[in-house]
Order: sequence, then C-alpha cells, then structure tokens
Amino acid sequence: MRDAGSYVCRVVSPATAVIVSDDNVAPLYARIVADSLEKEGVATLLWTFPHGEDSKNASTLFELLEFMAEQGVTRSDLIIALGGGVTGDMAGFAASIYLRGIPYIQIPTSLLAAVDSSVGGKTAVDLNAGKNLAGTFYQPRLVLCDIRTLDTLPDSEFSCGMAEVIKYGVLCDPELFALVKKGEARRHLDFIIQRCVSIKRDLVKKDEYDTGSRQLLNLGHTIGHAVERLSHYAVSHGNAVGVGMVAIAKCAYAAGFSPSDCSDDIAAALGAYDLPVSCPYSAQELCEVIRRDKKRSGHTINLVIPRQIGDTYLQKMDIDQLEAFFSKSGTAIDTDAAK
Amino acid sequence: MRDAGSYVCRVVSPATAVIVSDDNVAPLYARIVADSLEKEGVATLLWTFPHGEDSKNASTLFELLEFMAEQGVTRSDLIIALGGGVTGDMAGFAASIYLRGIPYIQIPTSLLAAVDSSVGGKTAVDLNAGKNLAGTFYQPRLVLCDIRTLDTLPDSEFSCGMAEVIKYGVLCDPELFALVKKGEARRHLDFIIQRCVSIKRDLVKKDEYDTGSRQLLNLGHTIGHAVERLSHYAVSHGNAVGVGMVAIAKCAYAAGFSPSDCSDDIAAALGAYDLPVSCPYSAQELCEVIRRDKKRSGHTINLVIPRQIGDTYLQKMDIDQLEAFFSKSGTAIDTDAAK
Repeated sequence: MRDAGSYVCRVVSPATAVIVSDDNVAPLYARIVADSLEKEGVATLLWTFPHGEDSKNASTLFELLEFMAEQGVTRSDLIIALGGGVTGDMAGFAASIYLRGIPYIQIPTSLLAAVDSSVGGKTAVDLNAGKNLAGTFYQPRLVLCDIRTLDTLPDSEFSCGMAEVIKYGVLCDPELFALVKKGEARRHLDFIIQRCVSIKRDLVKKDEYDTGSRQLLNLGHTIGHAVERLSHYAVSHGNAVGVGMVAIAKCAYAAGFSPSDCSDDIAAALGAYDLPVSCPYSAQELCEVIRRDKKRSGHTINLVIPRQIGDTYLQKMDIDQLEAFFSKSGTAIDTDAAK
Repeated sequence: MRDAGSYVCRVVSPATAVIVSDDNVAPLYARIVADSLEKEGVATLLWTFPHGEDSKNASTLFELLEFMAEQGVTRSDLIIALGGGVTGDMAGFAASIYLRGIPYIQIPTSLLAAVDSSVGGKTAVDLNAGKNLAGTFYQPRLVLCDIRTLDTLPDSEFSCGMAEVIKYGVLCDPELFALVKKGEARRHLDFIIQRCVSIKRDLVKKDEYDTGSRQLLNLGHTIGHAVERLSHYAVSHGNAVGVGMVAIAKCAYAAGFSPSDCSDDIAAALGAYDLPVSCPYSAQELCEVIRRDKKRSGHTINLVIPRQIGDTYLQKMDIDQLEAFFSKSGTAIDTDAAK
C-alpha cells in the first residue's frame, strides 16, 4: 500500500486521484494510499460511502459523480477503487461514465475482489429488479493487490472469496482445487491469487464482452444470483455461488449432462471454509428469479456445467425446461420449499 | 415512419423493441413505429417521459432501466430512441448500460437530432453540476431519419437545429453555409441533412472518442454550454451555440488567432432563422462555468477557432487566460454584465 503511488504513476499521470472507498476500508488504508500518491505529486480527494451491497445503487453512484463534478475532476484525473467488490464495481462504473470515461485503478482489499471482481472490467450497480443489471465493460488501467490487506479480513469475508477460488478450480484447474480443498488457503494466498487472476485474464482476453467462453466464469452464478435475490441479499455472494455450484453439479449429473457427480467434491471444498452447500429455495422459486437474469438471451440461458473437477462447458437451455432440470437434483435444491 | 420496422429488421432481429419517447413525440409517431415493428413480428413496449431537458437526469434514466428490468428485456432486445436530442441522448445511455449494453436505434424527429445528436454515439444525462456530464460513447446500430417529421416542428425548434447546420457550414463547408444563409433551409432539407451527417460521420470515424479532430464539432459549444447553464437552460442549446459561435469568432479575431472577422457572416446566417447573436453574460461569468466544462483537460481547454467560413482549427488555451481572451471581444460578450 505504501508504494501504491509509485505503481500508479508508472501507468498514468493524473493531476488528481479520487480515492473511492467504503466506511470500513477507508479508515484502514485511505490515508496510506493518499500519502503515497501525494509523495508522487498527485493531489488526492477521498469519497466514502456506507459499506455493503445496499449502497451499490444509482443514488450512491450519482452522488459520487456529482461530487467529482463539484470538485472539478477532469478527464486527465483518476479514480482509485479501494476496497471490495461493491467499491470496485461502483467506482469502475463511475469512471466509465463520468465525462464519458476517465481512467481508473483497482486496489482490491477483499479476497473476492482480488481473485474476481477487480479483474476483467465488469462494472455495475444493482437495480431494484436485480443485481448488477446496470453497468459497463470498462477495463482498469491497473489492478494493484497487496496480499497483506487480506490478513485483516474476518473469516466470513475470507470464506466468501474462497467460493470464487474453488470455482476457478472446478472450472479448469484440478491442482488448484486439490490444494484449496485441504482448507489451508490462507497459507498459499500468493499462489492462489496468481492462479485465479491468470485464469480470469485468459478467459477475458478471449471474450471481453461476455458473449462466449467468458461465460464459463458464471459457474454457480445463475442459481447463486437467484439465491442472493430470494434471500434479499442476506446470503452473501460467495455463499450463494457455493450453493449454486453444488446444485448445478447435482442437477447436471441427474439430468445426464455430466458423466460424474462432482457435487460431493465441491461440497467438501466449500465445507473446508465453512461455506453452506444446500439451497434453501425450491426449483420454482429459483426459476421465477432466473427468468429476469441478465444472462438470459431471449428464451434461453447458458448454463455452466461441470463434467468433472477442472472441466466445464456451456449448455444452452430453454427457460421453460429449467424448472424440470432443477427438480431432478433431489437434495441440492430444497424441493419442499415450493410455495 | 411506416417503414421503420422493415428498416430496423434489416440490421437487427430483436424479440422486443422498447420505444423510448417523450410526451410530445409519442402521441404523434409511437403508434406508427410500433405497428411497423409488429408487422415484422417484433413485440413492442412504449416508455414515455415528460419532454424537455429537465427530464434528462439520473432519475429518469434509472426509471427507464427499472422499467426494462421489470418487463424482462434481455440483451437480444432493442431500444428505439424516437424523438429529439434529449430522448436520443438518454435512451442511448440507457442502451449502453442496461445489462452492460444492448442494441439501440435512433429515429430523430427534430432537426437538431437529425443533423447532430443522433449521429456519432455520444450518449448522456445531465448532472446538477452541468450538462452531459455523465454518459458513454455507444454507437446506434442505425439512424433512421424521416424528413417529413420535421414538417411538424415549430419554427423555434427548427431554428434551434439550424444553429447546428450553420455550425457545419462554418466548420468546413462554405457551400452549405452560403445556401443556408439565404434563410431558405426548409426547402433544401434533404441536401442539408445529408451534408451535415456526412461531415459528422467523417469526423467521428477519424476520432470516435473525441480526443482530437472530433472536437472541431464543439465549435460554439464551450461558450454555448456556459450560456445554457447560466440561463438555467432557459436559453435553448441551438440558440446558445449560435451565440457561442459569434462570440468565439469575434474573440478570435480580436486576439489575433484569426486573420478575418467572420462573426458578422455567422450572425447574418443565424439572423435568417431568428436566432440570437449576442451573449448576455460577462467573460467572468462564462469562465466560472467553463472551469467545470468536461472538455477541460487539466488546466487547459481546446477552443475551436474559425479562420474563415469553412476553415476552423483547434487552439489549446490555459483556463486562466480565457477571461482575458473573452474580454477582448467587445460587443459579442456583454462586458457590462459582470457581477
């Protein structure tokens, strides 16, 4: 963190940097980042907002834009997203639309942001109708990750990020999966983050605008987003994605889309970080929400199906067949929860 | 208009088209456009908002996004901006951020939109701090212009668009300028719109993201935007741009940036459409607003200077020298209006 200014100035030369951070992260790191920038001759502004997904909306986004406009921030200035996924998504969105686009940099301070949301340029805020329904594709000039910031993460936050790490393993990296399944991820963070970021980088490079192979990164996310939404976001993103991965693995095997049932393996890896593995909502409830999923295209949706650990593929499915598909899972989705 | 559906379906195949229009234009054309789409098998949704610049804000934008989300609009659907500049800017912005981008089409029904805002992919809403401060670069798939819709335009609206037409003449087309200066533009609309759109197309092609030669299109806009803002948008965009062109021409000649004073010529052309030509604000008032102009970059701003009719160039100027530059103009800017 103390060297942030020097890293930043290797790729951009802003007159002013607007540090965007929430009220949890700002007291820990904003001063350190600001000092390091000022040492390089960059003026700084700090803009903070109340932490949590509830802040990730149009109103907070436009408060930030109005703040920058009042402060006379120009296209030759810079936004720095200092924090977790909510901060990165929203600050990146602000950067992409303020004056039709100014540069931004990500400094992730959560594991989830470090391995996932800070890389790839997906920015967003939530709508009332669902998560991440408004946003842009807009690449940060730099992603700066200081692993030491993860030491201060509470276990629940760390586990949340581990669900995404496990996702990368299931997706295409059996070695990573075997390592994290032992429950000792905290001891191998350097290796793990590098591996996850490089998997994501390669997929994003091939398909920046998410029309093909990048969609593999949505493993566990179709059901996951529905679980988040049905719980009114009481279930965190990581927990929901974990639940989603187990459920899709079970459904895929039951429906004959997958030759092996890897749901137990996935559940074991999630369990090593105290992540939940069963879905408290019925197939019918999930489907009602998924009908409004932004990944839907016309009447079909692309599901990410695990063949086995480290091997996944995209499977198009008609929305109307989804409920029957989910209902096959037996225990993964709570079939008694139907309204 | 009756053929809109057929033109649209040559370039996109949406399941649903969301027609975005204001309460002035929707009653005139929305049904016709919807019918023509439905004839092609495209379902339609209509979303209207109160006409006028006051609606071009974050709140209206997100009402539209929430509406689309509730209606289950997906990435394979389409937005149609049916109306003037406010509609086109805002509907284009919505298209660029809804689900991180869905296709859109412009059907301009004002002269201003036909010759300027519908082409080039600049989308925006206003912030409290100024016009068009939030937006994106996002190209429409098609711009469909039916010249007959301009027949119903009130004279004041028509004149507003003529300021931009005159701008293209001053910019690089003496023949166009000479034609419109006669005051008979309504009789040559086909030729005029074609000429303006092709000038704009060429400039945008060379410099889509507005970092170089596209900025020539801002002729008259730096002062123009300031006039709009200072009048709290009581002065329309076209009127303000006209005032801005006369003022910049006078200032440029007075300061020795231009070998000839073409302000009288410009004023005569504007006068032929009853457009105002003198600026009711002082150099000091203008500069206070321009300091917050999004076209500013660090401490400098690019001014568009007319050498003569049909010949303009970009001139970098330090913000701090701007007031002195404006003060040289004598009558164009009201030097008695200083606070």
